[in-house]
Amino acid sequence: MAASADGGLPPEPVRIVPGVRLAAVQANIRYRDRLDLVAVEFAPGSETAAVFTRNAFRAAPVEIAREHLAAARPRYLLVNAGIANAGTGAAGRKAALACCQALARHCGVAAEQVLPFSTGVIGEALPADRIAGALPQLTARLDAGAWPEAARGILTTDTRPKTAYAELQFGENTVRIAGIAKGSGMIRPDMATMLAFVFTDAKLSGDQVNSLLREQVEHSFNRITVDGDTSTNDACVLTATGAGMALEERDGAAWDSFRSALAEVFRRLAQAIIRDAEGAGKFITVCVSEGATAGECLQVAYAVAESPLVKTACFASDPNWGRILAAVGRAGLANLDLSELRIFLGGAPVVSNGEPHPDYSEEAGQAAMAGTDIQIDIRLGRGNCRETVWTSDLSHEYVRINAEYRS
Amino acid sequence: MAASADGGLPPEPVRIVPGVRLAAVQANIRYRDRLDLVAVEFAPGSETAAVFTRNAFRAAPVEIAREHLAAARPRYLLVNAGIANAGTGAAGRKAALACCQALARHCGVAAEQVLPFSTGVIGEALPADRIAGALPQLTARLDAGAWPEAARGILTTDTRPKTAYAELQFGENTVRIAGIAKGSGMIRPDMATMLAFVFTDAKLSGDQVNSLLREQVEHSFNRITVDGDTSTNDACVLTATGAGMALEERDGAAWDSFRSALAEVFRRLAQAIIRDAEGAGKFITVCVSEGATAGECLQVAYAVAESPLVKTACFASDPNWGRILAAVGRAGLANLDLSELRIFLGGAPVVSNGEPHPDYSEEAGQAAMAGTDIQIDIRLGRGNCRETVWTSDLSHEYVRINAEYRS
Repeated sequence: MAASADGGLPPEPVRIVPGVRLAAVQANIRYRDRLDLVAVEFAPGSETAAVFTRNAFRAAPVEIAREHLAAARPRYLLVNAGIANAGTGAAGRKAALACCQALARHCGVAAEQVLPFSTGVIGEALPADRIAGALPQLTARLDAGAWPEAARGILTTDTRPKTAYAELQFGENTVRIAGIAKGSGMIRPDMATMLAFVFTDAKLSGDQVNSLLREQVEHSFNRITVDGDTSTNDACVLTATGAGMALEERDGAAWDSFRSALAEVFRRLAQAIIRDAEGAGKFITVCVSEGATAGECLQVAYAVAESPLVKTACFASDPNWGRILAAVGRAGLANLDLSELRIFLGGAPVVSNGEPHPDYSEEAGQAAMAGTDIQIDIRLGRGNCRETVWTSDLSHEYVRINAEYRS
Repeated sequence: MAASADGGLPPEPVRIVPGVRLAAVQANIRYRDRLDLVAVEFAPGSETAAVFTRNAFRAAPVEIAREHLAAARPRYLLVNAGIANAGTGAAGRKAALACCQALARHCGVAAEQVLPFSTGVIGEALPADRIAGALPQLTARLDAGAWPEAARGILTTDTRPKTAYAELQFGENTVRIAGIAKGSGMIRPDMATMLAFVFTDAKLSGDQVNSLLREQVEHSFNRITVDGDTSTNDACVLTATGAGMALEERDGAAWDSFRSALAEVFRRLAQAIIRDAEGAGKFITVCVSEGATAGECLQVAYAVAESPLVKTACFASDPNWGRILAAVGRAGLANLDLSELRIFLGGAPVVSNGEPHPDYSEEAGQAAMAGTDIQIDIRLGRGNCRETVWTSDLSHEYVRINAEYRS
């Protein structure tokens, strides 16, 4: 068994976020005896933004959610785990739409005010009837405190729920930010098989919600990779219910605090996905600095973070820096000067001038690789840009999970 | 244990190639009790061309070989296994050069007429003294029939030697083509940790050898991938000794036969590397056709061939076509029309119009995945270009080998 990459940190306890109610039930969609259908309800007036996978093959619920988001202000999210409703053609669209319509009827809203999300296996039909049948029980359970159930109900191969919560105090006003997310394979920039939902009770305009979401996703979910694969179902949603305090950019320090707290919630959820990635025993930070552009830093960071050879070396706690060097070398940077490049493991210098650093010892390298968290720093020596990517190791467990997933 | 990907096909028996003599000895470079140092001697007048890794971090022997090739006509190849002499800085250059000089002294040629090649672990010093000490024994053994020993002496994590041989008859004249190669991790287009040496006794000009090599590499070694990693040491060499019949392009049919036979030798060696890839139990052919350009066909083929999810599905003999669809979708093709795309497994239609083909059954899919050889056909429906890439599956053995390689 692989060790847990975060040493078993529990999900963060979430308090209520005024304007948000949640519920989860067992709908037996594919799994048996576990929560697999989740609804989230927003108070009227809530502002919601969403970003979706850039995979050319978008699942049916992604298509429907995009259309609904363009047509109306969302009041409900409906999320199922187990079946992704991807690669299911016209029947898949019909099933996703039928689920939205059924929930809308129950709750007295327009079907366009429901955004559907699915995660799980590709190519199997979504049992819309079973989902519709579970809706009375689901809506009856809607509750402001049901965060643990909702966080569990969206999981697939994840081994534990992922939540993050932040609370800010501005005089007498409290602003709350809460998020839930699921991974855990097919993780790569465009947000993989990942679903993440973040909520705040701050009062924000639609434009604000939209630009905050895009800004935060870029430096959190778009900086993680498990296996370079991007799923057909990825989505990230940010909703501001407006039940609480209004915040605007001209508020200065308050706005900055809010933005930082929001960034922290996004980052913690993204990192929680990596810590619970399929088969992960290590949490690996690849930081590329001194690049001429952010783009070239990312190019190098992904070449290293997705190299199966680097990832198996991390699994084995082996300071095999030659594999890091080789991955940097094939990242495709023009005119890369080997003599300027430096590599550090856990802060200790390992490579400089194209050969082992004079102070490097195998013991120092092994110490840097031994723990659960591995820090790889690559300094290109050709500029001032810097980018960080988080990834997991490549373990026996990864192969086992992905070889057995459908069986 | 993973099954052997070719069902245990033996290496092809190689007859002599007039003008070529070979030898292998145990020099105890890193391995114990196995052949690890190989010399190949060419008759005077032989024409040699070579292509090397495009990784920015080239090993010392690659740098020296490029310089020597530019300066003189090669008479000897000197190949060691076990230590790659990469990431070794100025000392590494000196060691590679010292080996060339020692062999040159023994054989009465200039040091520039020796091309050095190393394969193995990165970042360890090459024991030039031990190599020099083994040269008297090595040169004494040079023999026209020592193909099996030479093919064994260049291996690292390979489980078996790789040879290919072809013989052509033109009237009374015989033309011979023989090749040896080694893999088996870090395999990707720019030829990975791979070394391949192909020899013919045809009489060819230097320009002919050069252009034939580039043409053949492109459709053989540059079409295989194990893990997307490219090594610091890859090299492929073609030598024409001229001991036999002269061949020119204007010879028409004879030239075409020779070119086909050469292509077949390159292709068989490249495929032998994949069949013996680290941990490989499956030999996977990814053929992308109906593309608008060759470039976009390759883009899709590599996205599929390097997807860890597709590769673990192949390992599990699981017809998980959703993972193939998802990999095609993230390959980055602009305006990809889902309704035009078709996917076949083992010749059976699986996906059309973005959903399972009406005739598809899970049994048919499983039958296509059950054997050692898996054929994935992707038809883009937007042009007439076609490209094929060969890869292996991602198995427990791959992780085990790469986690334990240095231990």
